Amino acid sequence: MAAMMDVAALTYFLQTEFPQVNADGPVFSVTDAGDGFASMRLDPSEKHLRPGGTVSGPSLFSLADVTAYMAILAQIGPVALAVTTNLNINFLRKPSPGPVDAKATILKLGKRLAVVEIAMTADGDLVAHATATYSIPPRQD
Amino acid sequence: MAAMMDVAALTYFLQTEFPQVNADGPVFSVTDAGDGFASMRLDPSEKHLRPGGTVSGPSLFSLADVTAYMAILAQIGPVALAVTTNLNINFLRKPSPGPVDAKATILKLGKRLAVVEIAMTADGDLVAHATATYSIPPRQD
Amino acid sequence: MAAMMDVAALTYFLQTEFPQVNADGPVFSVTDAGDGFASMRLDPSEKHLRPGGTVSGPSLFSLADVTAYMAILAQIGPVALAVTTNLNINFLRKPSPGPVDAKATILKLGKRLAVVEIAMTADGDLVAHATATYSIPPRQD
Amino acid sequence: MAAMMDVAALTYFLQTEFPQVNADGPVFSVTDAGDGFASMRLDPSEKHLRPGGTVSGPSLFSLADVTAYMAILAQIGPVALAVTTNLNINFLRKPSPGPVDAKATILKLGKRLAVVEIAMTADGDLVAHATATYSIPPRQD
Repeated sequence: MAAMMDVAALTYFLQTEFPQVNADGPVFSVTDAGDGFASMRLDPSEKHLRPGGTVSGPSLFSLADVTAYMAILAQIGPVALAVTTNLNINFLRKPSPGPVDAKATILKLGKRLAVVEIAMTADGDLVAHATATYSIPPRQD
Repeated sequence: MAAMMDVAALTYFLQTEFPQVNADGPVFSVTDAGDGFASMRLDPSEKHLRPGGTVSGPSLFSLADVTAYMAILAQIGPVALAVTTNLNINFLRKPSPGPVDAKATILKLGKRLAVVEIAMTADGDLVAHATATYSIPPRQD
Repeated sequence: MAAMMDVAALTYFLQTEFPQVNADGPVFSVTDAGDGFASMRLDPSEKHLRPGGTVSGPSLFSLADVTAYMAILAQIGPVALAVTTNLNINFLRKPSPGPVDAKATILKLGKRLAVVEIAMTADGDLVAHATATYSIPPRQD
Repeated sequence: MAAMMDVAALTYFLQTEFPQVNADGPVFSVTDAGDGFASMRLDPSEKHLRPGGTVSGPSLFSLADVTAYMAILAQIGPVALAVTTNLNINFLRKPSPGPVDAKATILKLGKRLAVVEIAMTADGDLVAHATATYSIPPRQD
């Protein structure tokens, strides 16, 4: 199954359907997408940081969740509304207060559930890793 | 081991050490604390909501994380700086766009790791459930 | 919704449908069941132990999984075939090499997914804690 | 940091320190090991199967756990005794009743915690995916 949405289409979808994700400025951006994956970048603002100058846990959670969601949309198109049912995240290293890149890879895309793995890196180091499950509504495929 | 910080002490700690948690107003508040547990309430503002009027996943993640952190501080006091290493969250039901209450219960408080369970309810229904692990620095006990 | 299978019915189901669970003797037994929960006991044999005399991780995983499954069957009856899709387990303390009791409580029983929490105790101490998700086939309810 | 134990050394360690893993025959075997990873194969016997002829969940859990453990030993050597503190596993597809291959990759190896990702395949398909955390005792490095 080929990818159904590219970077431009995902970016447009994000802007129109989830405007609150970037309500405070262009923080989350889609950087790549293809067959079974999507990549995003978090450019943290002050509110995404923690004392000591590291990117906050909730910001990394958001990055993991939205990138996984983009990977699923890239594969099945904008018609489906996936819902996060489970997300397990391991925080590995404290990222310095700069951009964080995430790549989400689909592990399974079934009729009812999708499972996605998300790796997050900063300055070339793996800073967090997550797996997430999404419930996907019935569709024709 | 008795609780070392009460609601007032935890509230003060939250305000002084983590001001960004409530940077946009009094959204997260400590409602109860005692031996091995802490409770908090999320009063969502517009930015914590999603289309359709439900509380966002990242907001529930934040609520789970900060409530678990308060439960640990209540037990070991403000000297220690615990770091989240793992958080697993199940989203069970879409909460309506009102307050969400969380109760964090310590499952284990070891020398190096603490494991905490967090139940989140809205209108009396369980809307999310999480377990989280925190790495705690060496201490005298 | 009242419980649909009691201890005797669950025990019979376990023996007839999953004989391999107790292939080496009466190791796993249903001890209680009711509205939204089930309890089981693991009486470990030599093969469930590890050097140093503790109950092995895979044995605790099995106990968590089968107890959660019993809790779901207690609620929806033997017609449905639930499949484990995710299990997250925290190992809290090393149990001594005696019986381990598990109680599984249903957090959510939806049309497609069930989420169950499982607490495992030995000698009164919490030794492990798990949450698990099950995919349940379409049913009339 | 180069790998400290190869396939032969890991196999010997498994046989001498964890004889119960293969108490019923040569079921779990180390197939590869190197810098930051280890691979194992499960050749299921009758007791690892479930009705319908699929490999059981506990068998896949065991495979994930022991393969992750081998990856850590390969990196830090046989002196350390790592303990599983958390394991999160997603069951993606039912494997047919043949061999299952696992590859464990170290995501983080810190002073106190190691986090490992484990991918399990059968007949070329990803059948399960896990992440696990291990507590490692103090060491000189």
